[in-house]
Amino acid sequence: MDIREFYDYCKEIASYTSAAALVEWDMRTKMPPKAAPDRSMVAGKLGRTAFEMSTSPRMAAFVEYFNRPAVDRQLSEVDRRNVELETKQYRKISAIPPDKYEKFTVACSKGEYAWQEAKAKSDFAMFRPYLEEIVAYQKEFIEYCGYEKNRYDVLLDDYEPSVTTEDLRVIIDGLKSELVPFIRQLQEEGKRPDTSFLKGTFDKATQEQLSLDILKAMTYDFGAGRIDETAHPFTTGIGFGDVRVTTHYYEDNVASALFSTMHEGGHALYEQGISEEYRWMPIHKGASMGIHESQSRTWENLVGRSEAFWKYYYPRFQSRFAQFEGVPVEDFYRAINVAEPSLIRTEADEVTYNLHVMLRFEIEEALINGKVEVADLPDLWNAKMKEYLGVEVPDDAHGVLQDVHWSGGLFGYFPSYMLGNLYAAQFFATARQEIPDLDGQIAAGHLDMLREWQRSKIHQYGALYDPKDLVVRVTGKPLDYHYFMSEVKEKYSRIYGIVPSESK
Amino acid sequence: MDIREFYDYCKEIASYTSAAALVEWDMRTKMPPKAAPDRSMVAGKLGRTAFEMSTSPRMAAFVEYFNRPAVDRQLSEVDRRNVELETKQYRKISAIPPDKYEKFTVACSKGEYAWQEAKAKSDFAMFRPYLEEIVAYQKEFIEYCGYEKNRYDVLLDDYEPSVTTEDLRVIIDGLKSELVPFIRQLQEEGKRPDTSFLKGTFDKATQEQLSLDILKAMTYDFGAGRIDETAHPFTTGIGFGDVRVTTHYYEDNVASALFSTMHEGGHALYEQGISEEYRWMPIHKGASMGIHESQSRTWENLVGRSEAFWKYYYPRFQSRFAQFEGVPVEDFYRAINVAEPSLIRTEADEVTYNLHVMLRFEIEEALINGKVEVADLPDLWNAKMKEYLGVEVPDDAHGVLQDVHWSGGLFGYFPSYMLGNLYAAQFFATARQEIPDLDGQIAAGHLDMLREWQRSKIHQYGALYDPKDLVVRVTGKPLDYHYFMSEVKEKYSRIYGIVPSESK
Ligand SMILES: [Zn+2]
Ligand SMILES: [Zn+2]
Repeated sequence: MDIREFYDYCKEIASYTSAAALVEWDMRTKMPPKAAPDRSMVAGKLGRTAFEMSTSPRMAAFVEYFNRPAVDRQLSEVDRRNVELETKQYRKISAIPPDKYEKFTVACSKGEYAWQEAKAKSDFAMFRPYLEEIVAYQKEFIEYCGYEKNRYDVLLDDYEPSVTTEDLRVIIDGLKSELVPFIRQLQEEGKRPDTSFLKGTFDKATQEQLSLDILKAMTYDFGAGRIDETAHPFTTGIGFGDVRVTTHYYEDNVASALFSTMHEGGHALYEQGISEEYRWMPIHKGASMGIHESQSRTWENLVGRSEAFWKYYYPRFQSRFAQFEGVPVEDFYRAINVAEPSLIRTEADEVTYNLHVMLRFEIEEALINGKVEVADLPDLWNAKMKEYLGVEVPDDAHGVLQDVHWSGGLFGYFPSYMLGNLYAAQFFATARQEIPDLDGQIAAGHLDMLREWQRSKIHQYGALYDPKDLVVRVTGKPLDYHYFMSEVKEKYSRIYGIVPSESK
Repeated sequence: MDIREFYDYCKEIASYTSAAALVEWDMRTKMPPKAAPDRSMVAGKLGRTAFEMSTSPRMAAFVEYFNRPAVDRQLSEVDRRNVELETKQYRKISAIPPDKYEKFTVACSKGEYAWQEAKAKSDFAMFRPYLEEIVAYQKEFIEYCGYEKNRYDVLLDDYEPSVTTEDLRVIIDGLKSELVPFIRQLQEEGKRPDTSFLKGTFDKATQEQLSLDILKAMTYDFGAGRIDETAHPFTTGIGFGDVRVTTHYYEDNVASALFSTMHEGGHALYEQGISEEYRWMPIHKGASMGIHESQSRTWENLVGRSEAFWKYYYPRFQSRFAQFEGVPVEDFYRAINVAEPSLIRTEADEVTYNLHVMLRFEIEEALINGKVEVADLPDLWNAKMKEYLGVEVPDDAHGVLQDVHWSGGLFGYFPSYMLGNLYAAQFFATARQEIPDLDGQIAAGHLDMLREWQRSKIHQYGALYDPKDLVVRVTGKPLDYHYFMSEVKEKYSRIYGIVPSESK
């Protein structure tokens, strides 16, 4: 058996997942509404075909053969990792009956559509039966796969292979103990930046031009991608040479699309930067969702909300929106860095963001372990928002219905957002050491310096390394949330004019 | 064996063809250039999957079972026709080895991309090897299928089941003998309309708005479709509830996108009008390419270039383009009805259009029967353009490279355009008899009267009837090209101020 046969087979599978990715991109950006029910079926069919090929006797034969010690010893590092990823997936999903899995993907497609309508009407009851079906499948799948300590570990493993529920609790306990008092101190002692000049009406076409320009400045390759509008922004790698960004424009809020474009652009740079040698291979993807998110967060927050970036970009921004003519760049920088409790995760600031993730992690973990039911979610959500962030949720659209994830069957995904923030801070600290005068380079508009560093250290490798190993390779140390804490403390103490209390 | 099993299987096949249609739409409208090579492979894979299912042992069993006389007698008209269409396709394509067919679809995807580049550079040599490969497959496939009189019959049968090469020659001889002298008379004796006011610069965004408005006026359902820009306009039915129109905007020519939008809109109304009961069935498509083309030609020419339509629509048109403020509607109507020899088929007028088709028919028929080679095409093309239309072809982009069809493996398709013109005139003559004061209705903007007539007589049935039978059902008579000839003679004699000579 030749490794080329294995790769050819992977390529066939990837053809279906590529088509499925395009169908899903289209469903969220271009598809006319009346096509939705039938298109869900098409998406389900493509998903099932890829699924069946990943669990077929053919794949079983590859898995058996290439895992033989005598064969494994002959493999290159790249070949071995590709086999390892397929083996892991094979063992996991071959536990699930194919017809169940297809019903699940159809339920997710329909669920996503139902969620859109329910969110528009702010009516959780409309979405509830769809979500119940999706959760029931998730629980059933976990039983097929089996678990050791916590059912939720099975879900986490899909997005962050090296992190367990228990690991997460430890990180969350540590972070919480430092973040919650710091946020309280900011609120009580700090001087809130003036944000009045951010209000206004911002022409959508001009915002579209801004998004294009920002992506160009970030060195996003438009020959291998595009940007479109959607309800809930996402980035999708449809195949080699085609990584698409989406965003959402609000006419009364120029910051939203601006930062969501930089966020999605960060994801896109990652996918566009994976080595061409890995084209069609299983490792042609990010190392994990958390690592992926670290790249988006770097561009959204560590670049996009930095003084250095706005030193460079502010005149270009001002030239598009006349209302900023009289606003000094320092004031603008402070205004886009307000840190305060709020309702919507995707609009949350760097400091409070992780609290939104903690809430979701706790709800998901309870739901999957049967400690709460779907029907309880709105009340549970609203109670936790009150408890952790001190805010009242006015309606489901601004509460439990705000995120697309659950409607698409993505449970165990949210913690990656928090991990992404933590990885990002640790990577950026290393970039600062390794790129001479990084701030000066950014302020001069040389964003390619950072992008090249990311490409050489992270992007090019795709999923060649396990995230745990990658962090050590890049930074010399395992994941440590203190990089994030010190970055945030230093930046926001300065913006809010406070002296942070000693952390425990 | 239950007919439901057959339909479920057809639905599975249609899932892949639906995904393939979306991939192809995307390739022509949205895809970034670097994705092209890999996406061709994806398109090929989806095509092959559908192909394999249409020729599988499962389909063989359906074909065998439902064609048994005792079973056939139990079938409804709809069921029988669905079985008939699948049987025909099964017998035809099961003759072709699946790997050949996949290579063919990949060759077509690549060919289409190569054609785009070659056309942009006006360089036939760049496209030649791709076309040679495609033609070689076509010839090989004809041998697999077998033929009685003429190899070209096998190709014609794909698009116009009831018409043979011989039939076509008879129609072409008749038409030629009336059209050629009439065009000569128009050129020699007629007064050419003033078209000077059509020149100008027409903002693309305004043209886009015009296309949207025209489609709305035509009662195109935007809840089940959309319009985008492409190099070579087409319409695609991606699935139930999703029929997409494309057009191309030229900043120096407002008429081009206007009429291509009406043309594609006519195709789209057909697909949108097929009975919902036929959803996912083999008959959920047009009766033939010629019938399909008759619907597009009706809206482009018989409505879009009529006095009645512009009586209604001209003020709306004028309000978008200031340069037409002082131009009387009569002058505008005459200007959009210039009939004269030209280079580009898609831009040709009602009168000369069929000559473009005759040329392509003759070239294709010669190519498929090995009387000429691909390398001969540019010279052959240019010679025939000179002979039939009296025009000199300046370069390949305006000659042999102008149409997308051959690059996508569509041979035998062009005659449908001519047949479409002929069916359209015959259908419209009947509509005039059956809709009281049709011109008055159109002039009052009640385009839904015509659309409803088309829907009840033609659209709703999809491919339930053979085109030959459909023409008789709708008009009471078999296809007769004299409807076209008299419509054209009457209209253009009036516009050009001539008294037509007696036809032979
Ligand atoms: Zn993200
Ligand atoms: Zn057409």
